[in-house]
Amino acid sequence: MSETAIRLRDIRSFHVGGQTVELTGQPQQTVRVSPDAAPRTVDLNGQYITGQLYAQHFMLERPRSDVPVLFWHGGAMTGVTWETTPDGRPGWAQMLLREGRDVVVSDAVERGRSSWSPYPQIYDTAPLFRTAEDAWYLFRMGTADGFSSDPAARRPFPRQRFPVARFDQLCAQFVPRWTSNADASIAAYSELVSGFDRVVIVAHSQGGWFAQRVAAQLPDRIEAIVLLEPAGAPQMDEAQLRACAAVPHLYVWGDYCDDHPAWATYKSDAIAHSEKLRALGGTASHLDLPERGIRGNSHMPMMDDNSGDVLSLVSDWLATQPSREAAEAH
Amino acid sequence: MSETAIRLRDIRSFHVGGQTVELTGQPQQTVRVSPDAAPRTVDLNGQYITGQLYAQHFMLERPRSDVPVLFWHGGAMTGVTWETTPDGRPGWAQMLLREGRDVVVSDAVERGRSSWSPYPQIYDTAPLFRTAEDAWYLFRMGTADGFSSDPAARRPFPRQRFPVARFDQLCAQFVPRWTSNADASIAAYSELVSGFDRVVIVAHSQGGWFAQRVAAQLPDRIEAIVLLEPAGAPQMDEAQLRACAAVPHLYVWGDYCDDHPAWATYKSDAIAHSEKLRALGGTASHLDLPERGIRGNSHMPMMDDNSGDVLSLVSDWLATQPSREAAEAH
Repeated sequence: MSETAIRLRDIRSFHVGGQTVELTGQPQQTVRVSPDAAPRTVDLNGQYITGQLYAQHFMLERPRSDVPVLFWHGGAMTGVTWETTPDGRPGWAQMLLREGRDVVVSDAVERGRSSWSPYPQIYDTAPLFRTAEDAWYLFRMGTADGFSSDPAARRPFPRQRFPVARFDQLCAQFVPRWTSNADASIAAYSELVSGFDRVVIVAHSQGGWFAQRVAAQLPDRIEAIVLLEPAGAPQMDEAQLRACAAVPHLYVWGDYCDDHPAWATYKSDAIAHSEKLRALGGTASHLDLPERGIRGNSHMPMMDDNSGDVLSLVSDWLATQPSREAAEAH
Repeated sequence: MSETAIRLRDIRSFHVGGQTVELTGQPQQTVRVSPDAAPRTVDLNGQYITGQLYAQHFMLERPRSDVPVLFWHGGAMTGVTWETTPDGRPGWAQMLLREGRDVVVSDAVERGRSSWSPYPQIYDTAPLFRTAEDAWYLFRMGTADGFSSDPAARRPFPRQRFPVARFDQLCAQFVPRWTSNADASIAAYSELVSGFDRVVIVAHSQGGWFAQRVAAQLPDRIEAIVLLEPAGAPQMDEAQLRACAAVPHLYVWGDYCDDHPAWATYKSDAIAHSEKLRALGGTASHLDLPERGIRGNSHMPMMDDNSGDVLSLVSDWLATQPSREAAEAH
């Protein structure tokens, strides 16, 4: 028991956002809820809540800061991203709790405990599913032809820091997702942020797009945004960019970005966006790990073997950002 | 800050169970992962993990017992069942942690953070969705015609203890579920139980069916099962019944069971099953709340306004059951 204890005042979970929708004209079904249960009629016509978002708020007994860190995961993932790593090490959520920060781990709309809605009745489109092959290449474990259905035969990039022996455990975390629910997602994330006086957002991949969208709406509530390999950049008008520029941004990049065409594009789009923020007087720093001499990070720095070191660099940057009190005194 | 602190040695989450499946012959798709992102090709052919189960293990600094309580939710729900109630009170998970019990909150296979798989490619059937109307009647908030789309116009049963003003917050917790994944679910739950030396299982509704199935396979690992309104009883042969009879059972029943035909049947089926366990020398007690003079409980006793009182009765019963040490000394 070498780890410090985590002393919590409370653990509170809740759903925010969402709206009531009504389905009509659906056929009736007779089902058994378990193989041996008596059959009963299920009527799909009726009311549903759609667009809600699940969050779990860990509240420390003695937090060092009254500003919680909100963790927003990426595409085809859930809040599990921030918990125990696939090879059983503490996740960033546990690490930050041990550093004295309250954390809020959420599942995006339509994923995990946030639930999802019937399609095409409520959602416009069918979901996407992530294969192991897709993740191997897209998450930059290795080249596409380095994947094998035999785990022992997989060939990761040299110096790969992701615990590739547990790659299938990462795949067990994947969930289906849609690409047509951006408005509902932004609304629910905005409601989540609005439930706090002030927050820091640490967002991964697709979550970064949501974080920047929400920052444009609620800049006064967001002390800083940490974007871990955002999947590109949101298209923003001048007013949105100006609002976003009031929120300090840290971008974090792993290794091998030039080895996948999508990442080369996402990264250059994000850099271009950050330059617009800087042109408006904003803080937009890039922590490019390979440029710092830290090689081998995948798309999942919160799971890589140096996840604690990367988090320390993030925490160091956060410590340099002015708190609200300082900003107000200014 | 009136609540006692929760002092944790660690919080560990993980997926157990599941297997690798391969999809072939699926069409390629070009997608944008967010509305402004560059398009990329998604190939659905490839490997998936299916049948895995997510669990979150809260490990106290100083547990009073080395036997954790595993919470298994019911149909169309997730582990959120055991967390903060829809009206913001502590859930049974937090209550038991404060009582000094380690708890493990899991999502059933195919639900919540456990993820789900494409159908009909991997799952045989389409999912079921739960409407507010269905839940109102089935969870015994009131009669079917007591539901209204206008929350203020809903008519709950007299003495209803569920916080009906927050009924829509309960509906926000619902997730789709299948009725064709029993084998995968039992396999994953068995693997979850096998990861511990000894456990107590507290199971709700459909979860009770899984708990009894797993008890028949792993009776030596299960110190007791608490069945909160199980949705009927598993069909078991003599050997399975005999294995199950080695595990003490407590059944808990709320009010209004005669006001819904499914519950009248489920309850009588469960009582008949418990009589078989007793005939084999097993302990199978029924905590019938209305018979005890406790009126007004819905199908969700862990959320009703007397949830703490019901948990105390459950804890009292657990305290009367022999621990393994006592059983081995016997």
